[in-house]
This record gives sequence, structure tokens and C-alpha cells, in this order.
Amino acid sequence: MASAPTQSLPANGGDGLYSYTRNSTFQKRGVEIAKALIKESIAEKFDANRFISPLAASTKLCIADLGCSVGPNTFIAVQNIIESLELKFSSAEAIEFQVFFNDFTSNDFNTLFRSLPCDRHYFATGVPGGFHDRLFPKASIHIIHCSYAVHWMSKVPKEVMDKDSPAWNKGRIDYAYGPPEVHEAYAAQFVKDVERFLGARAQELACGGLMALLVPCLSSGTTAQQCSIIAMAGVLGSCLVDMATEGLLSENDVDSFNLPRYYASQQELESVIERNGSFSIERIELLDRAKTDGGTMRVRAPSMIASSFRSILEGLIKEHFGAEIVDGLFSRFEKKMEESSVLSDPRYKSPSELFILLKRKVA
Amino acid sequence: MASAPTQSLPANGGDGLYSYTRNSTFQKRGVEIAKALIKESIAEKFDANRFISPLAASTKLCIADLGCSVGPNTFIAVQNIIESLELKFSSAEAIEFQVFFNDFTSNDFNTLFRSLPCDRHYFATGVPGGFHDRLFPKASIHIIHCSYAVHWMSKVPKEVMDKDSPAWNKGRIDYAYGPPEVHEAYAAQFVKDVERFLGARAQELACGGLMALLVPCLSSGTTAQQCSIIAMAGVLGSCLVDMATEGLLSENDVDSFNLPRYYASQQELESVIERNGSFSIERIELLDRAKTDGGTMRVRAPSMIASSFRSILEGLIKEHFGAEIVDGLFSRFEKKMEESSVLSDPRYKSPSELFILLKRKVA
Repeated sequence: MASAPTQSLPANGGDGLYSYTRNSTFQKRGVEIAKALIKESIAEKFDANRFISPLAASTKLCIADLGCSVGPNTFIAVQNIIESLELKFSSAEAIEFQVFFNDFTSNDFNTLFRSLPCDRHYFATGVPGGFHDRLFPKASIHIIHCSYAVHWMSKVPKEVMDKDSPAWNKGRIDYAYGPPEVHEAYAAQFVKDVERFLGARAQELACGGLMALLVPCLSSGTTAQQCSIIAMAGVLGSCLVDMATEGLLSENDVDSFNLPRYYASQQELESVIERNGSFSIERIELLDRAKTDGGTMRVRAPSMIASSFRSILEGLIKEHFGAEIVDGLFSRFEKKMEESSVLSDPRYKSPSELFILLKRKVA
Repeated sequence: MASAPTQSLPANGGDGLYSYTRNSTFQKRGVEIAKALIKESIAEKFDANRFISPLAASTKLCIADLGCSVGPNTFIAVQNIIESLELKFSSAEAIEFQVFFNDFTSNDFNTLFRSLPCDRHYFATGVPGGFHDRLFPKASIHIIHCSYAVHWMSKVPKEVMDKDSPAWNKGRIDYAYGPPEVHEAYAAQFVKDVERFLGARAQELACGGLMALLVPCLSSGTTAQQCSIIAMAGVLGSCLVDMATEGLLSENDVDSFNLPRYYASQQELESVIERNGSFSIERIELLDRAKTDGGTMRVRAPSMIASSFRSILEGLIKEHFGAEIVDGLFSRFEKKMEESSVLSDPRYKSPSELFILLKRKVA
């Protein structure tokens, strides 16, 4: 089977057992923790008068959530942004908000639309398309939000699937435990993708507009090998290898399957942003889960981890291997996770979540 | 079962046998015929300089198609509008277009998004919600298009389902053959709904912006009883009565089922628009199908008529009577249509299609 274009593979839609809706509490907590940061950011850094004036014709503010999936997380994030903006205006001014919910064309927009909050104070719209390309007219958005999405790359780098390349990633589905060339190819693809992302947003965000990113990245001072999620993906990869050994799927299919996501360091992210040059970094800091959650990822049960991985990866796996392997794969994965040291060994660190607030520089 | 709110019942999604996609060639031809009228309208009546200037920051034009369903008709209409607009600008100007595809929240937006033309020259967005309410921020749209949709009312008037009202429409599903009170209740609901439609659009359309409506209405000089579509709906209603007599469904359910759509006269439409006062009527004329199609509706086969009715009404019927009656009902309908005089009797006239071009008056 051909390598999966991520273009067509968002998280699971609907609201079933393995839906993103029911398996994104980790992301939801992150969005919750980021709420206060976004509230402060809008209060301190968003110059509403630049876009709205009682005399001017313009009375609307446009907000976009990129990689929104199907809710409820996107609704929580958007509601927080709207409330933060409403604080900036006296009730006399009739400001209107338009919210653009974006995700891949194959995202389950039907479910998203049906679950829109009834009491929302905004006009809702859906925007289909990958965020590495342009999605909106020039300077038409005032606030962009994007959480748990920028680490997804537009594709797996070609070299990694090329038998004749030193970056060939045979028998693995992630980049951290292979030859250094695999990691390098991933890092280069990530940089290229973030450059495209920033280039598109620089055109779409009005000058003075804000962009709040929540990006999973490596904990400070840790390597990709120590990243618990990458280690877990290693376990998932080993299940695929086992299944190939048992003849349940082809070795070739395992060799050509790779996860198109990358956990950058804070340093890597900052340097792409600076090189792009269109945005000032107004704030950058790690979400402090320990303070509010008391331990995070490490305490999660193998069954929850399996469901969470499945809600995000099922589409990719189905497209590459076929639907029939999915149940078996994830039940193996859950079992192996129970036996694995990833959850108990303190050398493994959860990814950090980096909150980055950017402002579109005035041209 | 409760009376169906149309709010949740768009035409059939997907691309199956009874999908709107595969059963809307009649509407498609109408959209095709209207293309030339819209092209002329934009060329003559749309003052692009009002919204775009090489020096001003604003370089985008926003277009909305209301009641878009799932394509392909909406894409044809939108493409025609974009091409007409592009003719107004020299290539040097980098105008960007944003298109808002609107239909009920339960419309199949997933199918709509997946079938967006790849070579489109516009940013696509989907807007869920009924068009009797506000959908967009104030003055944010420059061109509105709405075809074969305004005759759908927001609901069936209550009196029609009230046993104690003189407008009770027992044993019928349409308004033309019952007591005059039924017709009056429908006409009043239609006027109320068009008032809401125009009130919302008056706020959303920028001053000087255009709204092109294609509205099925009564042929000049004919009554509702002579309207072939209403007569056909009468045949469909008689099939339901037959099924109730045979015990296949309950008489109460038939009595409480009514089609929420109304074929107004040109006069009725003009007077609501004039009373609203926010729009000038720039052009109003009947589509001339005879010239291009040579005969229209009258020559269509009963099987096509049954599929077309089904693609539009299946959702309403399922919600009211349950899914199990649908196949039986439409096969009866097809049979009865074969025997009916509606297709052969020259007293029955197809509805006319009224093209109305409105311009938002400058406040």
C-alpha cells in the first residue's frame, strides 16, 4: 500500500469509543491550562482598537482554530478567546465575532457542526484544508489558535522510506531509535513544514494580530530517545514488527510506515520563528502540568494510552495496513504497554507543552 | 411522531441513488440558465471599486451561497460568480475570494468539502445554520447567491396541524387543495420567513452588494391548484392516505405531516422585498426554460420525478413516519404518477423560476 498522505488523515471523528472526542482529555487539560495564558495574552498584547473603532465600519473580529478536530477541546479554546476579547469592549459596542474552525478536508465537520455550543456568541464557519497551505484571505484573521497540531508534519520525509538511503527507517515507525540520518530527515521536514505554516499565517494574520500556539516538544535537557511518547510509539512499532513476523501483515508495509510527527526542542522552534521574521515572540513558556495535574502522563493506564493512540492514529494505520489489523494491533499494544518500562522508568520524560504567543509584526 | 422541524432536514447527502447530488439535474439546468443573467448582473451592477482599491488594505471579496446542499450545483454557481468578478479586475490586482457555503447544520458538509473543485480560485468555508437567521457578521458579504431554497419555509404553520383550527389540513400534505385557510396560513408563514431572510441579509450584505435569488414560484396567471409540483405532492399525499387506510401507518401521522414549502406569485415576492426596504430590485425576470430545454418538467419520467422528490423529502418523511415506509411510499408514488393526469393534462403548469437581482441600498 502507498504511504499515507497525512493530508487526508485527521483524528477519529464521531463520538464512538475510539473517537478523538472521547480520547483527548490529555489535550483538553492542556487547553484548560493554557486558558489563563491566553486570557492574559489577549488582555495585555491584543490592541483591539487597531481593528475596531466605534466610528469605523469594521465591527468584527475573526478568530481561527487550526487543526480543530471535532471538539469539545476547540470549543473550550474558542470560548476562552471570545470571553477574553469581550472583556476589552464595553457592552455598548456591538462587536461581532466570526470563528473559523479548520482541519483537514476529511475531518468530521458534520460532527463538529452538530456539536457547536448553542449559546455561542459567534458566527461559526468550517474551513477544510491542511494548515501548511493558505486557508484564508490576506490579513483577514485577528487571532489564530493552534494546539497539539504543529508537531504533525505534512508528510513523512521521502528518504526514510527509501531502501537505498542512509535514512531508511527499516522496522521502525518513529525517528528516535534509528540511524541519525532518520532523525535528521525528520528534523529537516519539520523545519520545512513550520516554515510553510508560518509563511501562510504571516499573510493571513492582520498586522498586530496574535497567534497562540500550544506545541508538544521535548522537555528541556532531554533527547528524543528519552521522550515517553516516542518510546510508546516504539512499542507500537514493535507490535507491528511482531505481527509481520507472524505473517499477519507484510514486512514491506511495516518498513514503509512512519509517523509524520516530530517533537522539536524549544530552541528548534524559536529559530524557525526568528528566521521567518514576520512575528515577534511575545511570550514563550512551558505549561506547568505538574502544578495542576500532579504527575501527568506517567500515571495514565495502558488502556487509556492505547485508546488515545488509536483515536489519533487509526486513520493512518487503516489507510496503510487495512482496517482488519486495527483491533489486534491496539490490543497487543495495550498488553505490551503493561509490560513495558516506559511508564515506570523515570528516565522517560513526557513531552513538554510549549505555549508560544506570536504577534504579526507591522509590515 | 412530532412534526418535523425543517431546521434539521436538508436534501439527501452523499452520492447514492437518491442523493441530491444525483437527483438535482432540474435545479442544475436552472443554475446553468441563470449563469448568463448573473454574469450580466455582476458586469453591469456590481461596483467592485466600492470594495476593492489598489491602495486600500482590502483585497478580498466574500461570496455566500445559501442553501448550497452538497454540490455540484453550488460549485457551478460559485464558479460562475468568481469568473464574472475576475473579469472586473486586471490581473495585476491580487484580489482574493472567500466563499461561504451555507446550509442547515445537518447538511452533509463532509461530502461538500470532499467534492470541492481542486482548481478553485477561492478560499472555501462552510457555514452551518438555517438562513432565516443571521449567519455572518454585519456587512461582511459582497455577493449572495441563493437558488431553489427561499420557497422552503422555516416550519409548517401551526394552525395547519391543529384539529381545532379552520386551517387544519387533514389528509393532505400540501396547501393548495384544502380549505382556503390552509393556503392563507402557508402564505402568511412564507411572508414571515422571507421577511426574516431579508432582514438577516440586509445586515450581512455590504452596502452596494448584490443578492441573486432563483426562486420557484407560480407561473404568471396560474393558481396553486394548477401548479404541477403541488399536484404531484397531492399524488404523494394520496399514497400516504392509502398506506394509512391499509394500516401501514397511522392516520394521525398523515394528518400532521405537511410540506414546509410555498410557491409564491411574483407579486407576493416583490411586495415583501419592497416592504423590507433595504434592497433595490435591479432585475426581475422568469428563467426561460422553454427556449433552452424545449418543454421542461412535463416530459420527465415518473421514475425521475419519484427520485427527485425522494432526494429532497426523504429526510422529512423518515423523521416523521420512520425509515421503513420510504421505499414503499416512493414506489407507490412512481406507480401513481404513471397513471396520473398531472404529466399529460395541459392545465397543469410547472412552477416558474424567478430570477431576482437585489442590491443592498446604501444606508
